[in-house]
Amino acid sequence: MSKLEFKQVTRNFGANKVLRGVNMTWEAGQLYGLLGRNGAGKSTLMKIVNNRLFPTAGKVLLDGKSVTENADAQNRIFLMSAAMLYPGDSRIEQLFTLTREMYGSFDDELAAHLAKAFGLDPHQRFRKLSTGYRTIAKLIIALCVPCEFVMLDEPVLGLDANNREIFYQELANTFASKPRTFIIASHLIEEIENLVTHVFVLDGGTITLDEDVADLTAKGRVVTGPTALVHEWLGGTCTLREVALGGMLTAYTLDAPLEKPVPAGVTVGGMDLQQMYLELTRNGGEVDEA
Amino acid sequence: MSKLEFKQVTRNFGANKVLRGVNMTWEAGQLYGLLGRNGAGKSTLMKIVNNRLFPTAGKVLLDGKSVTENADAQNRIFLMSAAMLYPGDSRIEQLFTLTREMYGSFDDELAAHLAKAFGLDPHQRFRKLSTGYRTIAKLIIALCVPCEFVMLDEPVLGLDANNREIFYQELANTFASKPRTFIIASHLIEEIENLVTHVFVLDGGTITLDEDVADLTAKGRVVTGPTALVHEWLGGTCTLREVALGGMLTAYTLDAPLEKPVPAGVTVGGMDLQQMYLELTRNGGEVDEA
Repeated sequence: MSKLEFKQVTRNFGANKVLRGVNMTWEAGQLYGLLGRNGAGKSTLMKIVNNRLFPTAGKVLLDGKSVTENADAQNRIFLMSAAMLYPGDSRIEQLFTLTREMYGSFDDELAAHLAKAFGLDPHQRFRKLSTGYRTIAKLIIALCVPCEFVMLDEPVLGLDANNREIFYQELANTFASKPRTFIIASHLIEEIENLVTHVFVLDGGTITLDEDVADLTAKGRVVTGPTALVHEWLGGTCTLREVALGGMLTAYTLDAPLEKPVPAGVTVGGMDLQQMYLELTRNGGEVDEA
Repeated sequence: MSKLEFKQVTRNFGANKVLRGVNMTWEAGQLYGLLGRNGAGKSTLMKIVNNRLFPTAGKVLLDGKSVTENADAQNRIFLMSAAMLYPGDSRIEQLFTLTREMYGSFDDELAAHLAKAFGLDPHQRFRKLSTGYRTIAKLIIALCVPCEFVMLDEPVLGLDANNREIFYQELANTFASKPRTFIIASHLIEEIENLVTHVFVLDGGTITLDEDVADLTAKGRVVTGPTALVHEWLGGTCTLREVALGGMLTAYTLDAPLEKPVPAGVTVGGMDLQQMYLELTRNGGEVDEA
């Protein structure tokens, strides 16, 4: 099975250290969520995988070989992003053909089905589409390329609620019928929470969370109470994050010692991905991305 | 008090009739929501107000005078949109200066406050910003121009949850301290529901809903039950939309005859803006926007 590995991937833009040693692995046949604040470096990371940017240090390996200036690897990787530009006056159907020429094949049947589902006429010119329909045209292409790794950078940008729902459903369908790896960077976390199987959080230039959603849901606990009592109950338990407010502490953990009785004054609740993510990245807004 | 009136505004793109006679009025000092499916024509409408497009027929009047090729009127109107482009390598602070020169003044104090709140360094070059931070830079400019009518076309495009929250709060603050008219087109309806005071729904080329949010909330009712019973109870009541499924009917109305007893089998519930909007626009996806 193919896999894509990030080894200490670092990227500076002048004095701005956007990625500071990213380590993670994307396995074949997974639906990943890549979460992070605006400017955290999600797009930079995806562009490095796709050779639109190069790392300052570190490597991205596809089956052990660097993806940098590696045409074979690039042919197996696709990036859909807001920055994607197409030749001036192309019609959508011409973009389908162009994509087939670049990647060797293209799922025409699925493209026709998706165009119908979203109400997009493939004879239209890309340049003339609204913001939402430009995203839709790009999404259709991304779901129909033959690549093993498909990165979707903000796939629902500008989509209305009905079209977002269509996208999530169609993505789940195509993933089920032809498993490949999708990496979804999105700010609508509640909406992708039930779609992705594993999440990465990028914050401060490194991966601060790398967990299966099922584990987060099953094992994740939010422990709240007077700081001393929470610490005493947790003992040496590893926490993902602790937030102190006055004498109270909120701790997020995947290893709560549930066999021990919970002291009076301490509450232990389930962990919600959105809430977890907000806490993990609350102070991440200052990092600017180039 | 200033007002902006749409009189039978129509716009065709070739054979595609995007706007088919839009009538509505934007009053001074209001926070409006403009809702509609992807491709419904929201951006087309805003571009017409801003002279980036011209109507095929009909007029937009500011205090009774057409806004078309009317420099005085244009100086009082601002449009923030995804399509906004800035000179190649400009720094954010240079865009602030440019805006001051174009509109005669600029709220530097608010701009500095907002840049800090969002973690944006005004010395950065616009071109180098991530998708989310480009939106943030545009938002700051839109909140600091001296215009009486500020149109925000998808103001939270690409913003993370924390930054969306900051934006809604800052918009409410500046609106309270210096009332002017904001028109917000957004697909995150749940998020703007508590912000805007009045909503317009654009569907099939015309305005299909034009209501105060307070009225929708207070008077809106969803009536569900066997078709004949629902019709009998409603009598001649005007409905916004009726959805039939089998022998059952769901009717949306602002004029439910609440003084009459509700027959067994019929339920009358409150109306939620998001739900209302989804029903009003469910079949609106085919209209493509240029």
